[in-house]
Amino acid sequence: MPSPHIAPHDDAPIPALAEHFQRVRGQTERLIQPLSAEDCQLQSMPDASPAKWHLAHVSWFFETFVLERFETDFKPFDAGFRVLFNSYYNGVGDKYPRPQRGLISRPSLQEVLDYRAQVNARVLNLLATTNKTLYRELAPLITLGLHHEQQHQELLLTDIKHALSFNPQGPAYARRWPLAGIHPQPVRWHGYAGGLVRHGFEAEQDGMFAFDNETPRHPAYIAPFELASRLVTNGEMMAFIADHGYQRPELWLSLGWDWVQAGQHRLPLYWLDHAHHKDYRHFTLQGLAAVDPNTPVCHLSYFEADAFARWAGARLPTEFEWELAARTLPASEGPAGNFVENAAYHPLPQQEPGHGAPTQMLGDVWEWTQSNYNPYPGYKPWEGLVGEYNGKFMCNQFVLRGGSCATPRSHIRASYRNFFPPDAQWQFSGLRLARDA
Amino acid sequence: MPSPHIAPHDDAPIPALAEHFQRVRGQTERLIQPLSAEDCQLQSMPDASPAKWHLAHVSWFFETFVLERFETDFKPFDAGFRVLFNSYYNGVGDKYPRPQRGLISRPSLQEVLDYRAQVNARVLNLLATTNKTLYRELAPLITLGLHHEQQHQELLLTDIKHALSFNPQGPAYARRWPLAGIHPQPVRWHGYAGGLVRHGFEAEQDGMFAFDNETPRHPAYIAPFELASRLVTNGEMMAFIADHGYQRPELWLSLGWDWVQAGQHRLPLYWLDHAHHKDYRHFTLQGLAAVDPNTPVCHLSYFEADAFARWAGARLPTEFEWELAARTLPASEGPAGNFVENAAYHPLPQQEPGHGAPTQMLGDVWEWTQSNYNPYPGYKPWEGLVGEYNGKFMCNQFVLRGGSCATPRSHIRASYRNFFPPDAQWQFSGLRLARDA
Amino acid sequence: MPSPHIAPHDDAPIPALAEHFQRVRGQTERLIQPLSAEDCQLQSMPDASPAKWHLAHVSWFFETFVLERFETDFKPFDAGFRVLFNSYYNGVGDKYPRPQRGLISRPSLQEVLDYRAQVNARVLNLLATTNKTLYRELAPLITLGLHHEQQHQELLLTDIKHALSFNPQGPAYARRWPLAGIHPQPVRWHGYAGGLVRHGFEAEQDGMFAFDNETPRHPAYIAPFELASRLVTNGEMMAFIADHGYQRPELWLSLGWDWVQAGQHRLPLYWLDHAHHKDYRHFTLQGLAAVDPNTPVCHLSYFEADAFARWAGARLPTEFEWELAARTLPASEGPAGNFVENAAYHPLPQQEPGHGAPTQMLGDVWEWTQSNYNPYPGYKPWEGLVGEYNGKFMCNQFVLRGGSCATPRSHIRASYRNFFPPDAQWQFSGLRLARDA
Amino acid sequence: MPSPHIAPHDDAPIPALAEHFQRVRGQTERLIQPLSAEDCQLQSMPDASPAKWHLAHVSWFFETFVLERFETDFKPFDAGFRVLFNSYYNGVGDKYPRPQRGLISRPSLQEVLDYRAQVNARVLNLLATTNKTLYRELAPLITLGLHHEQQHQELLLTDIKHALSFNPQGPAYARRWPLAGIHPQPVRWHGYAGGLVRHGFEAEQDGMFAFDNETPRHPAYIAPFELASRLVTNGEMMAFIADHGYQRPELWLSLGWDWVQAGQHRLPLYWLDHAHHKDYRHFTLQGLAAVDPNTPVCHLSYFEADAFARWAGARLPTEFEWELAARTLPASEGPAGNFVENAAYHPLPQQEPGHGAPTQMLGDVWEWTQSNYNPYPGYKPWEGLVGEYNGKFMCNQFVLRGGSCATPRSHIRASYRNFFPPDAQWQFSGLRLARDA
Repeated sequence: MPSPHIAPHDDAPIPALAEHFQRVRGQTERLIQPLSAEDCQLQSMPDASPAKWHLAHVSWFFETFVLERFETDFKPFDAGFRVLFNSYYNGVGDKYPRPQRGLISRPSLQEVLDYRAQVNARVLNLLATTNKTLYRELAPLITLGLHHEQQHQELLLTDIKHALSFNPQGPAYARRWPLAGIHPQPVRWHGYAGGLVRHGFEAEQDGMFAFDNETPRHPAYIAPFELASRLVTNGEMMAFIADHGYQRPELWLSLGWDWVQAGQHRLPLYWLDHAHHKDYRHFTLQGLAAVDPNTPVCHLSYFEADAFARWAGARLPTEFEWELAARTLPASEGPAGNFVENAAYHPLPQQEPGHGAPTQMLGDVWEWTQSNYNPYPGYKPWEGLVGEYNGKFMCNQFVLRGGSCATPRSHIRASYRNFFPPDAQWQFSGLRLARDA
Repeated sequence: MPSPHIAPHDDAPIPALAEHFQRVRGQTERLIQPLSAEDCQLQSMPDASPAKWHLAHVSWFFETFVLERFETDFKPFDAGFRVLFNSYYNGVGDKYPRPQRGLISRPSLQEVLDYRAQVNARVLNLLATTNKTLYRELAPLITLGLHHEQQHQELLLTDIKHALSFNPQGPAYARRWPLAGIHPQPVRWHGYAGGLVRHGFEAEQDGMFAFDNETPRHPAYIAPFELASRLVTNGEMMAFIADHGYQRPELWLSLGWDWVQAGQHRLPLYWLDHAHHKDYRHFTLQGLAAVDPNTPVCHLSYFEADAFARWAGARLPTEFEWELAARTLPASEGPAGNFVENAAYHPLPQQEPGHGAPTQMLGDVWEWTQSNYNPYPGYKPWEGLVGEYNGKFMCNQFVLRGGSCATPRSHIRASYRNFFPPDAQWQFSGLRLARDA
Repeated sequence: MPSPHIAPHDDAPIPALAEHFQRVRGQTERLIQPLSAEDCQLQSMPDASPAKWHLAHVSWFFETFVLERFETDFKPFDAGFRVLFNSYYNGVGDKYPRPQRGLISRPSLQEVLDYRAQVNARVLNLLATTNKTLYRELAPLITLGLHHEQQHQELLLTDIKHALSFNPQGPAYARRWPLAGIHPQPVRWHGYAGGLVRHGFEAEQDGMFAFDNETPRHPAYIAPFELASRLVTNGEMMAFIADHGYQRPELWLSLGWDWVQAGQHRLPLYWLDHAHHKDYRHFTLQGLAAVDPNTPVCHLSYFEADAFARWAGARLPTEFEWELAARTLPASEGPAGNFVENAAYHPLPQQEPGHGAPTQMLGDVWEWTQSNYNPYPGYKPWEGLVGEYNGKFMCNQFVLRGGSCATPRSHIRASYRNFFPPDAQWQFSGLRLARDA
Repeated sequence: MPSPHIAPHDDAPIPALAEHFQRVRGQTERLIQPLSAEDCQLQSMPDASPAKWHLAHVSWFFETFVLERFETDFKPFDAGFRVLFNSYYNGVGDKYPRPQRGLISRPSLQEVLDYRAQVNARVLNLLATTNKTLYRELAPLITLGLHHEQQHQELLLTDIKHALSFNPQGPAYARRWPLAGIHPQPVRWHGYAGGLVRHGFEAEQDGMFAFDNETPRHPAYIAPFELASRLVTNGEMMAFIADHGYQRPELWLSLGWDWVQAGQHRLPLYWLDHAHHKDYRHFTLQGLAAVDPNTPVCHLSYFEADAFARWAGARLPTEFEWELAARTLPASEGPAGNFVENAAYHPLPQQEPGHGAPTQMLGDVWEWTQSNYNPYPGYKPWEGLVGEYNGKFMCNQFVLRGGSCATPRSHIRASYRNFFPPDAQWQFSGLRLARDA
């Protein structure tokens, strides 16, 4: 996930911000309604966090960076939370070891919800009583906190999916059956001339807010290329498996082949093995389900996405190729919001084929690009605690673009850069093919 | 913990067994009353299990080995529990991976309590409707199940203590302050002539039940030796620490020294580091507390106990030396029951110095012996699923004797053999010194 | 090291190629003259290989890719060598596990030298008897084999340095004392306008040969930037250390900080710890020596180079910035050959300050760039066994440029891309600072 | 291997000791005659040492414990050897890390042989010039050093076998083909009444020397038992394999089953896999050879020996049962010397069936016992550096008895206790069955 960073400016009026605050905060709590206190306690790996921790951490962000700074007579809800719910801000002080977040049974879920309620009331009170001058400082921090919370909304879903998958009884996060499948769609290739193109956050098109890693806008040269009209599907992944894709070293990066062998990977994450290489089932947020061949394949690592592309005689796009294509999409309803998964998959209106544009660009699955997560030329981290060495994650990670079915709709934009290491599988990550023109 | 095994015989009348069943089962539930559903979910290491798992597993034992065999028209409470709550019985079928027990949020704690209630009702119904012949088969299995459950009562406490200790806010399992300390007591040495002595379970003295590893009773030769009148105290451990005991390789077994260095051990488990090597505090089931110098030291690994004994110019007793001494204790009230810990420590009546016998032999802390956990000569595992390769744990473990403050009183006897690997610290394990006469 | 690849064409006359062949092959053997058979057996980590293995592997390359294909009645020197000395060519068949190369005492060093002699004779015989048509196929493979051998000449030196460093008696690869130091040189900044610039191998300037990863030549946009006039020195690294650079997380990439803590890194590789943070000594190929403050710092990981640059308020250059600067160097004698190290360091003629160009660009230490090792746009691996999935190493590695004091002079060129993972220290790797204009 | 310890007394006249010294020292050098300097450099795992290290370490023992103490104007051969060739004596000072012994190419093999020659000359000179009083101190140390050297003679063979086995070309330590096999011999069971029996070193029967772990002689009670007339054979191990012995958890200790699964063990060490479970081949000191079904099975871990015994409906003997049987062997020629292996196996004269005694007790393969390696009651380590915490290895190891075909003949005796952890396979270790009477 991108390091949160202060937006350059935010001139929304106070009531609109308060309303936005309540909407985003409320959405987080809606996400845990299907979960018990015990569900919210689970941590299945160091990279994932308990739902309860997500609920508390996003509130800690407001308490630490907003209330502590702007409230007169600030008193913490609980002094120990400063350490417990710090993620990685060394500037804030100590932090509780990440792999042990699942060992914090106290505070209870109810106490964390009380914490949220108090933070909400105090932030809203601050907004109601602030003056114009202070508001100019306050508003960007609150806006940042809300975008930060939206990132954790998606992580909460990816992490609870991972945790529940360890239960052999196949529990569902939520049941929404039956759901319509989607129809097969042949791949077409869309050509782009490229050239010297400007990339990065552009307020007019991308909205009021961006993380610092989307800036500065800058030129980059792109050679002519072609992009597939849709995402790679589960059915195509089955063909890769049937063609022994997981057993052929020549299809894999050297590190990817090491990863395949060390983890004995033979299928995408969550797929259940099957004797005859068909009728696969997989674990979803709706429980166990048949793998639908027309739905975009998901939960691939970069290694798998790269190997599939090589097998298909194509390659992954760069993040700039992807962004160039995304900027030429026809204006329409925009991306999907939470939350549609798998057999529950519905093609979105703006993604219907039309003016020759690719479909499924926004809000379906995160698309692995071949671009390393690097700073843009001229990149400068912001000052202050919230900008604590923002570039520190820019090593051995790859950029994903487009947002997934679990990404809040208002969090999706053409300039957004998500990033994960090449072995990460538990995000809603798939791929789209590209090739040189 | 010893492998549970069928008692040779049990002639208690049916109502007495039903009453015993209800008492032991009820005690397990009383142990979790201070805990929330989230607390009961915690698993802090592969060797420890969530409280919820303990609650379910001991019921699984009755369901699998009693109800499934003796109930007409047996139907499992939940077919999936057979795998989820199997510990290590390969004969029963698959088992869920031990390190992932903390990832089972469903069934919930409430569902597990419902499971317990149903199993209780069905077992009691079985007892109420059984005939004499069947009862001869049934009673030993139920008795075994209850002793098995008592083992898990202690494990539930050691495991929840370990899990709660990761919470930097120092939560208490239960608060019982203030509690009286105990008075210093000088060590005296009690001499024993030894000779060819019979060891192992002896029904007249040890009661109606024994695990198979306590049998057969057999002779062993013991050279003359002396045993300390009391356990080693926290104050003596502080002297060891102050004398740089954790930094001197000549005091340690070679594997123990590796363990010290790999884990950077400088204090017993749960002790908090302290700049001036005094006024130590430690984590207890009552929360954080001062270390009382007169209380027996606890949570030592075998390596630490062995190093302390070498530093003190003595050695650990063998399990036969310990048993010989335990058999000569004056008859008195017997061992303590659940649950007294640490600053809460009270010397028990039978352990008052008196007829020249050592004190604190039963129900204070488990005492490491220098004896490897081996089969007694002529040892034979019982037949059937419950006796599944009983000797399989007899490798690289050491015997502990005497029971701890967390051991149910009726579970303590002179012939009982507890066992753990030499690096285990999370049990209530301490030591008593011995030396050659 | 770059994957070897076939040069597009090579029109050198046969006698010149034979002479080149003998010169490069002879140089490899000169490199092991200071070493015993036991020295040549050492393997200090999986990433490094024994000198004996290098000697054999580069001959295996000629035997497998040249003799086997072009010799009539080809018979292998020893059929087992096909597996033993294969590095990573899956297409050739099995390969012996890399971490165990140091366990191959037989063939002996002498037998490997005999192998070399036979391969030499057979290749020269082939050249002497080939016709023009065949030569067009043969020559590129031999040329490729010689460049491949030159890569291994440098690896042989880096690997033997690493292996000998484990000997507490501080042995020397070769002694060449005393050697003159170099004089301090203040840093100046050279400005570059950037723009849309073509990068990659260009035969006219870079010579007759390139690996495939240097192609195709392609445009990329570069923003204005400045480059330091010289490499970072040992003295500057001492200032970083004295300023607690290894203890300050804000200077490091997140993965870099993990690396510092896991490895307890406090000094560059080969530096000996010193109580007063001065008068450092380090292990060199000439044995133990004082660290000269004016010599370029060497054996840094990417993590260290990146942290130093951040501490210095600058950044690492991209590989294209570096290449742009390298292409504007004044024509002069060109880079140094084997072999000058550390206190033995002499500034090279072409690197004297002069026409405003940076110095120490070629043949001093490999310079870490911030560029990930990625394929150039339009990159296509060559066909055939020698081109076996060439791009397979393009993941989680960073590009180094410029060549080191251990690189054969004729192997250094402006387009050359070396690459290593960010934690690799044992190459002759340092850095030069850059900054935005 | 037992910790070396000072013999209680040694009254051999000086010339006899000098002659003994020369004989043992010369034998060590004869053992490396088939090896090159490169062979002597190999270290295949941390538990094994290079042959060169063995050659040097046993000389270091004489230099450090004899010459340094008794020579006037002692000067070390090389001051650095004190650290390089120290094994585990913390009292002597620092020691070089064990896993890196294979990285010491200098001193060369020739320099180590020079070191040996100088130490020999100086020890012999000391013996030639000592007086009676000094000799009483000197002689036990030299005797100890020679027994220590004999231990390393066997280790040198087990370690070089392990190292050479990594070479896919199947090199031989020495070739002695063809060799006669041995004839099948049915198992008979020899009964022993047991009782209170004295065990441990007994000078009259066991010779002039013992390590401290063989003392003090002490009584122990033994129940009646039976011992197999011969060792378990390769043929019987093949039957275990064919009966899926490596796939059946009920045959294994719990730790043993973990070991089988983690290491994917399916065959004894050095056996090559074979499609049809017959005609097995294995790596021997004579190179690759067919597995002879009548030869004792060898290179088993304790886990394998224990599982085999359980499969066979028997058990391993205790070390006291073994010793009791060994003390009743008919007087005959005594054990074999170096060196006979595998297909080269010849039954020894004293081991022919005769007076109802078991055969193959001494000098064939080390026999795993079920006895943990513990101190005998009343055990006291000797004073001084050579006795440095002798008991420190008495944890998680098992006793082996009887000596192997690689053990020097004069090093074999009924009281000798060898010991290794239960997963060790690379010693010449097999088993003999026992059962309760």
